[in-house]
Amino acid sequence: MTVRIPFDGLVTLLAEIFRQGGCSTDVADIIAQNMAAAERDGARSHGVFRVPGYLGSLASGWVDGKVDPVVEDVAPGFIRVDGRNGFALPAIAAARAQLVAKARTNGIALLAIRNAHHFSALWPDVEPFAREGLVAIEMVNSMASVVPHGGNRKLYGTNPLGFAAPRRVGDPLVFDQASSAIANGDVQIAAREGHHLPPGFGVDASGAPTTDPRAVLDGGALLPFGGYKGSSIAMMMEIMAAALAGGNFSFEVDFRQHPGAATPNSAQTLIVIDPNMGARGDFAARLEVLVDELRAAGQDRLPGDRRYANRREAMTLGVPLSSAEMAYLQKVARPG
Amino acid sequence: MTVRIPFDGLVTLLAEIFRQGGCSTDVADIIAQNMAAAERDGARSHGVFRVPGYLGSLASGWVDGKVDPVVEDVAPGFIRVDGRNGFALPAIAAARAQLVAKARTNGIALLAIRNAHHFSALWPDVEPFAREGLVAIEMVNSMASVVPHGGNRKLYGTNPLGFAAPRRVGDPLVFDQASSAIANGDVQIAAREGHHLPPGFGVDASGAPTTDPRAVLDGGALLPFGGYKGSSIAMMMEIMAAALAGGNFSFEVDFRQHPGAATPNSAQTLIVIDPNMGARGDFAARLEVLVDELRAAGQDRLPGDRRYANRREAMTLGVPLSSAEMAYLQKVARPG
Repeated sequence: MTVRIPFDGLVTLLAEIFRQGGCSTDVADIIAQNMAAAERDGARSHGVFRVPGYLGSLASGWVDGKVDPVVEDVAPGFIRVDGRNGFALPAIAAARAQLVAKARTNGIALLAIRNAHHFSALWPDVEPFAREGLVAIEMVNSMASVVPHGGNRKLYGTNPLGFAAPRRVGDPLVFDQASSAIANGDVQIAAREGHHLPPGFGVDASGAPTTDPRAVLDGGALLPFGGYKGSSIAMMMEIMAAALAGGNFSFEVDFRQHPGAATPNSAQTLIVIDPNMGARGDFAARLEVLVDELRAAGQDRLPGDRRYANRREAMTLGVPLSSAEMAYLQKVARPG
Repeated sequence: MTVRIPFDGLVTLLAEIFRQGGCSTDVADIIAQNMAAAERDGARSHGVFRVPGYLGSLASGWVDGKVDPVVEDVAPGFIRVDGRNGFALPAIAAARAQLVAKARTNGIALLAIRNAHHFSALWPDVEPFAREGLVAIEMVNSMASVVPHGGNRKLYGTNPLGFAAPRRVGDPLVFDQASSAIANGDVQIAAREGHHLPPGFGVDASGAPTTDPRAVLDGGALLPFGGYKGSSIAMMMEIMAAALAGGNFSFEVDFRQHPGAATPNSAQTLIVIDPNMGARGDFAARLEVLVDELRAAGQDRLPGDRRYANRREAMTLGVPLSSAEMAYLQKVARPG
């Protein structure tokens, strides 16, 4: 059975859960907002589904839910953040205003975050920049779960790429895609719900192709999307996130000493651009020309469209959750 | 039969051809260097194979081989170039030193080029930045030849992405890949040599899947690599190149009034980063850690390896050409 909870009510409930789990009030609020937004937009694999992962990392001492990130202004276009083994979302929040200011002054600016756990979707990070008229590109590495194309063992993370660009009329054009053929969260959901994966998405513990999500999770691995080209994208994410920010490569993340941990201590790079510095006219108006052409070519659904539709419905009717999920949230929010 | 020509001899021969074709001495030299480097590195589809395309565009008046680009210093991290309907390579060359200086001062800098014809590979553009210790990302749009995933007509160009990062020990890690399943030049070579394409690479004029390269070239179209994710990458290239720089989208390039023209008047964006600003240690040394792990995972050939091997051989033995290609070059270099 589906129940509906007002967005703000879901934020409050999740914030209580993360405070109970060991986060400071500020960190709990930031993660709760992010997770409620994912659930609101129908991005289920980054929604309430992730509560146990956050709590497991906190309970095992693998992540610090109370620490403040250290922001360093390295150069006119470059900000460096040490997440101090906290979550990535507070690290992004701590540098965000400065990043926007630098992008507006310099035309382009970069935020490199190391030693921080990114366990959420990328579109909530990049979409707000586009709502301020800026273009944003985010590159994140995670933990080893993807075999390079033609390789024999997992090495890359699912390594997502996020992109957002402002439109004059419509909601921003936003995409957020793993460089694996499928995201880890979606494999977990398929396993939980008993669905098979499409062929070419994963291998089992012996390295043989499989469509069984449990075989992928049980010592197996994912494959990159699009063969060697997707594998190159995954490599670029390792370089642009881990190597550039000075964080862990995905194959260096090891939480085996922390039972229950689920979040990666890895790295993130955000590049933000003021697009009107380059354009002969109005960048956002040119995006409308592209969107019109995409619609004319039969692209009825643009990247982000489904999320925006879910968002509008959820803000009117409430965010839909299964009654089991709601019962779980109420239980963990008020333990004992 | 294969003949070999010294690299410098090939550059001289090609420069003569482009001067004859209507380029200024400077422009002819730049294009000749670039094309000879592609042939030297075994990147045949961007080598001598492209001479007729350059000459066709010049002869038809579609491109201006003599014009000087206009470079504007827009912001501390942003350079804007109007290629004035010339080739892109001279436009990049005109802004290159300033781009490097801005990246070193600001940590990151962007070069946006509009109204310029990019008809060459991307790796020769990005590799030199990595040899100076910088990271470079290049995004280029071209002319409509790719149907968006799920779409019904071509709209995107092959829209390549180029990436280069410096290593401490080895040659830079460099990749250069079309966001189509195959590059246009490789379809032309397959058609010329009578090879079939793999399934999923193209459609014919009716939109039906085909493995016949002639059917793709004859009113058909290419498909993006990797389904909807590759299609998102192609979209990002249109936005980051055409919309950002203020140039033509791929679907706006129309040279039907210029018989023989082959080059796209489109746009290019180069982002250059000083990677040591973000790293806790030495970025190039961290790349060696990644490379070691890639080799251990069975990646015997890294992106760029084949080009570097071809390059070493060609610099010792000469650049290999077929005798037919050599005869063609000698004929066009000394017409009449």
